[in-house]
Amino acid sequence: MAKVKVSINGYGNIGKRVAEAIKKQNDMELVGASKVNPDYHSHDAIKREIPLYAISNPDGFTEKNIEISGTVDDMLKKSDVVIDCAPSGVGLMNASLYARHPHAKIIYQGGEAANTAPISFNAQANYDDAVGKKSVRVVSCNTTALSRVIKSLDDAFGVQKARVAIVRRAADPNDASKFTLNAITPTTVYPSHHAVDLNTVLPHIKITTMSCVAPTTLMHCHMFFATLRNPPSEVSNVFRVIGNNKRLLIISAKHGLYSTGQIKDLAYENGRQFGDLYETGVWKEVLGIDADGELGMSLAIDQQAITIPETIDAIRAVTATADKETSMELTNTSLGIGELDLKTYAPQIQKQKFV
Amino acid sequence: MAKVKVSINGYGNIGKRVAEAIKKQNDMELVGASKVNPDYHSHDAIKREIPLYAISNPDGFTEKNIEISGTVDDMLKKSDVVIDCAPSGVGLMNASLYARHPHAKIIYQGGEAANTAPISFNAQANYDDAVGKKSVRVVSCNTTALSRVIKSLDDAFGVQKARVAIVRRAADPNDASKFTLNAITPTTVYPSHHAVDLNTVLPHIKITTMSCVAPTTLMHCHMFFATLRNPPSEVSNVFRVIGNNKRLLIISAKHGLYSTGQIKDLAYENGRQFGDLYETGVWKEVLGIDADGELGMSLAIDQQAITIPETIDAIRAVTATADKETSMELTNTSLGIGELDLKTYAPQIQKQKFV
Amino acid sequence: MAKVKVSINGYGNIGKRVAEAIKKQNDMELVGASKVNPDYHSHDAIKREIPLYAISNPDGFTEKNIEISGTVDDMLKKSDVVIDCAPSGVGLMNASLYARHPHAKIIYQGGEAANTAPISFNAQANYDDAVGKKSVRVVSCNTTALSRVIKSLDDAFGVQKARVAIVRRAADPNDASKFTLNAITPTTVYPSHHAVDLNTVLPHIKITTMSCVAPTTLMHCHMFFATLRNPPSEVSNVFRVIGNNKRLLIISAKHGLYSTGQIKDLAYENGRQFGDLYETGVWKEVLGIDADGELGMSLAIDQQAITIPETIDAIRAVTATADKETSMELTNTSLGIGELDLKTYAPQIQKQKFV
Amino acid sequence: MAKVKVSINGYGNIGKRVAEAIKKQNDMELVGASKVNPDYHSHDAIKREIPLYAISNPDGFTEKNIEISGTVDDMLKKSDVVIDCAPSGVGLMNASLYARHPHAKIIYQGGEAANTAPISFNAQANYDDAVGKKSVRVVSCNTTALSRVIKSLDDAFGVQKARVAIVRRAADPNDASKFTLNAITPTTVYPSHHAVDLNTVLPHIKITTMSCVAPTTLMHCHMFFATLRNPPSEVSNVFRVIGNNKRLLIISAKHGLYSTGQIKDLAYENGRQFGDLYETGVWKEVLGIDADGELGMSLAIDQQAITIPETIDAIRAVTATADKETSMELTNTSLGIGELDLKTYAPQIQKQKFV
Repeated sequence: MAKVKVSINGYGNIGKRVAEAIKKQNDMELVGASKVNPDYHSHDAIKREIPLYAISNPDGFTEKNIEISGTVDDMLKKSDVVIDCAPSGVGLMNASLYARHPHAKIIYQGGEAANTAPISFNAQANYDDAVGKKSVRVVSCNTTALSRVIKSLDDAFGVQKARVAIVRRAADPNDASKFTLNAITPTTVYPSHHAVDLNTVLPHIKITTMSCVAPTTLMHCHMFFATLRNPPSEVSNVFRVIGNNKRLLIISAKHGLYSTGQIKDLAYENGRQFGDLYETGVWKEVLGIDADGELGMSLAIDQQAITIPETIDAIRAVTATADKETSMELTNTSLGIGELDLKTYAPQIQKQKFV
Repeated sequence: MAKVKVSINGYGNIGKRVAEAIKKQNDMELVGASKVNPDYHSHDAIKREIPLYAISNPDGFTEKNIEISGTVDDMLKKSDVVIDCAPSGVGLMNASLYARHPHAKIIYQGGEAANTAPISFNAQANYDDAVGKKSVRVVSCNTTALSRVIKSLDDAFGVQKARVAIVRRAADPNDASKFTLNAITPTTVYPSHHAVDLNTVLPHIKITTMSCVAPTTLMHCHMFFATLRNPPSEVSNVFRVIGNNKRLLIISAKHGLYSTGQIKDLAYENGRQFGDLYETGVWKEVLGIDADGELGMSLAIDQQAITIPETIDAIRAVTATADKETSMELTNTSLGIGELDLKTYAPQIQKQKFV
Repeated sequence: MAKVKVSINGYGNIGKRVAEAIKKQNDMELVGASKVNPDYHSHDAIKREIPLYAISNPDGFTEKNIEISGTVDDMLKKSDVVIDCAPSGVGLMNASLYARHPHAKIIYQGGEAANTAPISFNAQANYDDAVGKKSVRVVSCNTTALSRVIKSLDDAFGVQKARVAIVRRAADPNDASKFTLNAITPTTVYPSHHAVDLNTVLPHIKITTMSCVAPTTLMHCHMFFATLRNPPSEVSNVFRVIGNNKRLLIISAKHGLYSTGQIKDLAYENGRQFGDLYETGVWKEVLGIDADGELGMSLAIDQQAITIPETIDAIRAVTATADKETSMELTNTSLGIGELDLKTYAPQIQKQKFV
Repeated sequence: MAKVKVSINGYGNIGKRVAEAIKKQNDMELVGASKVNPDYHSHDAIKREIPLYAISNPDGFTEKNIEISGTVDDMLKKSDVVIDCAPSGVGLMNASLYARHPHAKIIYQGGEAANTAPISFNAQANYDDAVGKKSVRVVSCNTTALSRVIKSLDDAFGVQKARVAIVRRAADPNDASKFTLNAITPTTVYPSHHAVDLNTVLPHIKITTMSCVAPTTLMHCHMFFATLRNPPSEVSNVFRVIGNNKRLLIISAKHGLYSTGQIKDLAYENGRQFGDLYETGVWKEVLGIDADGELGMSLAIDQQAITIPETIDAIRAVTATADKETSMELTNTSLGIGELDLKTYAPQIQKQKFV
């Protein structure tokens, strides 16, 4: 079977991650990546042997001795699928560019508004809805994390209502210009957009969310309360459901993972490229069932990594080159999802819990 | 009527606030405050004309030319009520000291374990339970804030279940030695102790809480989800309940209060001593009623200030010198609670909402 | 003698401080303050009984029921002196406004470029140069702090060369929107503008500076290295010079002041309005003389407070209503400068040092 | 030639870096690493196929199913050289352990006091002094960075006096328990210990240092002022000296490297293991020569990485298996030092400067 030709429009923090993930797929080929400015990310692309295409000013690259392979239009001509990794809000502005290349399917990366594409996408939640579509939007980092958790819980226990408090990281580690410093800044709307966004992929779920921004760069943290239709009798039932989903990862303070700082360190330690944690982290100690059967749990989310697996799945969905289970398994295997040593680390503890 | 003689055991961030609040009460007299070390807080006490008593090493004070009025035992002999403002966990260790002065009633300030005193106290929730008691514990900052909100909501709408996500400040502004830096650290137990603590003053409330620590010094932030027995038909009903409780304060991003940073600035601006916000802040924009009648809201809590009014009320309760309504009104008036300009700031907006 | 009529153009963090300082001067009268937007600072001005004038949109204030006394032109008509407290860079844009009121002298607050006014001002350094002038610029917070220290050292020992490393706070406490988070950001020019700025008030001083921004809101910190023409034989000589300048303040970790956090707390404790530290803090333990006679010292600077005394002095200078010594003494006394308890806190230690 | 057998006593943030660096040396063999606790770092060692030895409690490891190869004594028996990577201050307490294994040479990793070993070590500064010695101490991160810069400058221009302001990171990224939050904390001694430490490897240099801690985890930042005996006529001379030293790296805001955040990102981007920057970064834009010939420059230092190359060199020095130039070149090549793309990134700019 011919490989799917994929290109990245907008090579930055997310674009580089998508590009590296595509390289690891046997059924895909990376055409190249585009950039506006010839900064150090451009140089990085060259070093990774990713053909670079200029979005607007080819001479700017040439002046800095950065070799480019053409313009963004040249790149799109060769692509079956383009992944729009432009900054939030720019995706919609790329409409005229994409209109010039009607053969190419478009996947909008997280952060875009729901109306950017007719279909919002989360592999677990609605893979089949995206099969063969012209363009889809992968939902944002927080929504991707929630979709996985809620879909798994809903399948197992029936989610009657989810209520989520989201503590967001203020900025990415390499971004030193927009933040909240020594303060907590709530998102001043109720519910926050995350509830609305979750319903784009899981429309039948009753959900409310609030969010605030805290001065940290590493990860988001969710505190999650759910009313379940068929509450499990004990937490081991919940851990079993989580353990069966490779895109969820149980983390424990007993292993030294007592803050988001150690979790990121663990990902680096384990050789994950860019120190990425593709999985939604679920804190073992902060999961419980109330006397009335409601579930409480706390999640840790790597904002830069979490949507990467779903983006790879979206490529297979829009090109109809694999079904849901096949795609998710291919993506998991290629990225090492479900193979972090943590899960095999303390087998006795897990045995006690799961038997 | 003779004034109630009150002393402070442990003069620090909280002790100084309690001392200043006592000075403002016409029915109380400040005997003095005790300290372990002759550091700059000692000097501050002298400047505020608060008689200083040495907890353990009187000579240490004399050597530094800091005048003391005696030992902590001397202080207790003169006191009707002693407020234990020792650091968290030390209150219990003061038992033998207090046993030597059986006439003095004891009020333990927030942060102590529930078993430190037979009664846990929140003025709104259970004033009457504390009347005439030998010792009571004022619940901690987060629990005090929640008690006020939940009691008000419960009286108005019946709280069937509360679920609260608590984002805690890592340290006080003048404490540079224990923290979480650039990370989010969950409290690794479910539920967090706050739910248990809330039930010491409101035992009939079904509640669960989770908490995490964020790297900020200014205020705590709560995200609060409640199922109500008799849900209000619109948010104006909720704002009316909040508006009727002087110890709650509606704050709005429209007034420039878009993070905890501006809220603390507002308190300083308004001439509040130490920049203290005694009220539980309720963010106007982050309050809503779900389609199913559940309530969501976000709170801002000044960890150093919020228990001060309840501590003053506790003095009147244990000495049986005033009933609940009288005490709360005296405390409110003396501390300016309910008089922050914010409430009168944008009358039209409030009119639209409340009419 | 008629009081000097002073107005504030731009009422914000600095404007409110200048306004309150003017109220405390017996020889001055506050005409009022202007604002662009009717936000909570406007309300604060009303509460402080400061007549408010609209800079551009009077109806916006009226719509929010905020009483104004007229337009900024109305305010300037009544003023002998206007203090430009507009954000950095806006001062220059107010030229046409000021041109319509040629009788009013103008004092530009810190943060403006040197060419905004013909004279840059620091009371100690060059008061006499500003006497009777039409407009002067008070140098910025870091430069004001350095001017005081360098002028004192130069008078006492002759400064041959000063080299200063400046660690700047990233944002003010009530500003949650522009920062550096978990990173250190150098000012990428050598020398930083502070050296150039210092020479506008002390042109004969040989100086170089570098600066970087750290993620904190409280204070700047300087590390200062100076070659002296007549090096003192011991540090007590330096402490004597510092002790004789009321606008410098010796602070000590021995008093519990081991970070900028405690220093701000101290200022609040001592009842300073807004918790302001008008003095340049000099860390006692971080001051030494090298074997070759060079001096090292570390400074702590409250970015919001430090230029206030100099601004008050500038009013007297441009109106020629007092000479340098008289003005500085009036300003010091009215603002309590030189009266922080710290100086009298540990007399024995100081005696040992200074005798 | 037989490979030098090296073991790591204390496997943590630094130990893992040393271990990985040793693996990359053709003339060395990694015996194993020891640990006190069976936490996630232990698991990491297993995954990296590093034989693990228990420092005190072998059963603790066995209970958690972590395979160990013996005790720390077993490890030392097999070692020619042991690298002490214990936390600061613990090195000295390991004396009796090392006394039981007199054949093994000891290298103390940065952070230990100067009296821990008879020789303090920096490869460039005093390699020859360490040849064949029983034990040496690699100086700390800040001192290592300064030794490189000062040695290079001294060789080229003669350093008459160095004055350095050090802004230290408060904690490592995976350490969430000891810090300074939203404050700047000076080291309250003059000079700071860094000057003293620098003189242990470069005793003839006249130097003074001050330091303060800022709330960041990523890197230290130095602001450096030097009087030179033979000042260069232009900055290009200085850049040439820096460019000729592979352990120094010129970084530029023009390449998007405007804070320590981007520098760490760059190191990750370039595939450096753990995102380590072994080189001392020198900010291109913050380097200048004053009119009087003095030099100012600003440095960026990766606290976890910078001493690794010198530690590898120290192994060759104490075993007398290579001379200084050979060792430094072997270390550089094996770790990719001097090969970051940054140096080849903007050749035109460098041509202009260096020709």
